[in-house]
Amino acid sequence: MRKPTIRDVAERAKVSLKTVSRVINNEPSVMQATRARVLHAIAELDYEPDPSARNLRSATAFVIGVAYDNPNPYYIISVQNGVLSACRETGFDLQIHPCDASSPLLVNELCDWMRRSRLAGLVLAPPMSERMELVEALASRGVKLVRIIAAAEDPQDGHPCVFVDDRDAAYEITEHLVQLGHQRIGFLWGGQEHRSSSERYLGYEKALQDYGITLDKHLVVPGDYTFDDGFRGARRLLALRDPPTAIFGSNDEIAAGVLAAAKSVGMNVPYDLSIAGFEDSPFSKQSWPPLTTAKQATEEIARHAARLLIAQLRLDAPEAPVAAVHNHGFVPQLVVRGSTAPMRPRPPPAQDA
Amino acid sequence: MRKPTIRDVAERAKVSLKTVSRVINNEPSVMQATRARVLHAIAELDYEPDPSARNLRSATAFVIGVAYDNPNPYYIISVQNGVLSACRETGFDLQIHPCDASSPLLVNELCDWMRRSRLAGLVLAPPMSERMELVEALASRGVKLVRIIAAAEDPQDGHPCVFVDDRDAAYEITEHLVQLGHQRIGFLWGGQEHRSSSERYLGYEKALQDYGITLDKHLVVPGDYTFDDGFRGARRLLALRDPPTAIFGSNDEIAAGVLAAAKSVGMNVPYDLSIAGFEDSPFSKQSWPPLTTAKQATEEIARHAARLLIAQLRLDAPEAPVAAVHNHGFVPQLVVRGSTAPMRPRPPPAQDA
Repeated sequence: MRKPTIRDVAERAKVSLKTVSRVINNEPSVMQATRARVLHAIAELDYEPDPSARNLRSATAFVIGVAYDNPNPYYIISVQNGVLSACRETGFDLQIHPCDASSPLLVNELCDWMRRSRLAGLVLAPPMSERMELVEALASRGVKLVRIIAAAEDPQDGHPCVFVDDRDAAYEITEHLVQLGHQRIGFLWGGQEHRSSSERYLGYEKALQDYGITLDKHLVVPGDYTFDDGFRGARRLLALRDPPTAIFGSNDEIAAGVLAAAKSVGMNVPYDLSIAGFEDSPFSKQSWPPLTTAKQATEEIARHAARLLIAQLRLDAPEAPVAAVHNHGFVPQLVVRGSTAPMRPRPPPAQDA
Repeated sequence: MRKPTIRDVAERAKVSLKTVSRVINNEPSVMQATRARVLHAIAELDYEPDPSARNLRSATAFVIGVAYDNPNPYYIISVQNGVLSACRETGFDLQIHPCDASSPLLVNELCDWMRRSRLAGLVLAPPMSERMELVEALASRGVKLVRIIAAAEDPQDGHPCVFVDDRDAAYEITEHLVQLGHQRIGFLWGGQEHRSSSERYLGYEKALQDYGITLDKHLVVPGDYTFDDGFRGARRLLALRDPPTAIFGSNDEIAAGVLAAAKSVGMNVPYDLSIAGFEDSPFSKQSWPPLTTAKQATEEIARHAARLLIAQLRLDAPEAPVAAVHNHGFVPQLVVRGSTAPMRPRPPPAQDA
């Protein structure tokens, strides 16, 4: 039997040769149903594309990198998935590089990495993206980069970015708790080196202020973006003589720790304690009760950052189509679920013995 | 003021020049405390390594790839972290490539990717790693690869692998439930294309058989490794006239769905229903009650796979030290937590009206 050709595939799938070629070369412009039909035809005929006939990409690798330092696996996987989706649209590949944001050698480390792996550009995740001296040092060495940062406004500092207005979203969460009647609202910080955490704190502080609620410093606990810090922080707050009736954990990992701490002391959430997180992670949907949170759209944010980077890289390649390069802002949206409820009055705190 | 030199750093940190050089070049042989001292000295002196003095790696990038198709983010991030840790030890970098395991063009896609990005080798995660025709096709094109596979024994088929004995671990979980008095134990499958899921099913089946419990086909539900399939499958089992008193979800995502389903119908876990998962994911520790599961050590498994791959790559480089290349097996360990408890007798099922 003769070997099947691309023509046989096109006939069987009832599409043009060009369409088969697009599917073989993984071009994004083919509709899902058409792509499936072509793939079925390829499988049925056992057709194998001839490498010399394939539209082989240039010998130069088009690879971008993502550098991150974050203890939250869902955040990282969402960033990766967003960047990968922009890579697939454009034929780029992705290297990942977790690093220590506090290392004084970080500039050298990142430049060495980019040079030895011939990376075309870099998506910088927080907190590195928020350290201006690092960004300046990389830019001065000619590194093309796009930052994902926490900021209420476009910084317009000449370094492309995608900015996420955590402050407004944190204001909304706090407002939601206040409107449920809560006056004593605990706040658990994420890592101080993440600007997102101070932005969220500022949103919390502003909402309390606007509603005339005095901020009680005992209700604010430092920590990192982790379950364990959420658990420890909540245990500390719940042991106060006058504990909070609601706790706002500055991400969902922290809020998960608060939920476990509340359950470990026999509290019924949300009736004995309201809990809110931030991120809209899978955990926030899967826990019981599911968590009130702010939907952060991390994947979309990262996809936009990668598109911005790739558009910038193509501006340098005169043969490629020129795309406009714009910074872009996102505002996470309040998502109300079962972990927050109207405040129930509590007995007054016990008097000193 | 003169620019600080590597000698100044060594003096200040009270270490040898060689040690400073090791830290600058990110070599793994420096103790944590020493490394910290050197980094402090570098930061205090504002020392910047001279690129020409740095032990710059060869112009060839040493990059390996991980290809995966898995809906479970924690599994993927653990695989990445394990591979990255082996990369850091050896100076390799990592590209990641999610793909569609069912695509008939997968061999071409992976070969194109490896060629254009000049990858030295590949870690194949399940289910691709378990499709022998894919493995053979890649090997015949000269691709160096190591597979992570579900298998009770070393397949010794000439293709290096790390094998994970899911069957024994699933046997142990089922045995644990039987020993708690459960006779009606539901089983929720993961994706049928994952050998891990059939291995786990076989362990479940064998344990029931060994304990003289007849397998009731109504208690076995197909699905994928997802929360939603766990939720749906559990709702179906709990709606049976004679529902199970325990459910074994074949990974923790599924078990999380079972937990939510049980809570959604007002059941008290573990008293009304025992639930076990598989993986020891963060969710299994963070949920309430925390989940009985099998600790899979995915990160360690992936680290071993990457070490095996890198050792293999170095065998091809005569100047590098030759390491022995051995396949390696892992057995996940039973972890008993709060989601499983002794069976409580139930009223007999209602008679037909």
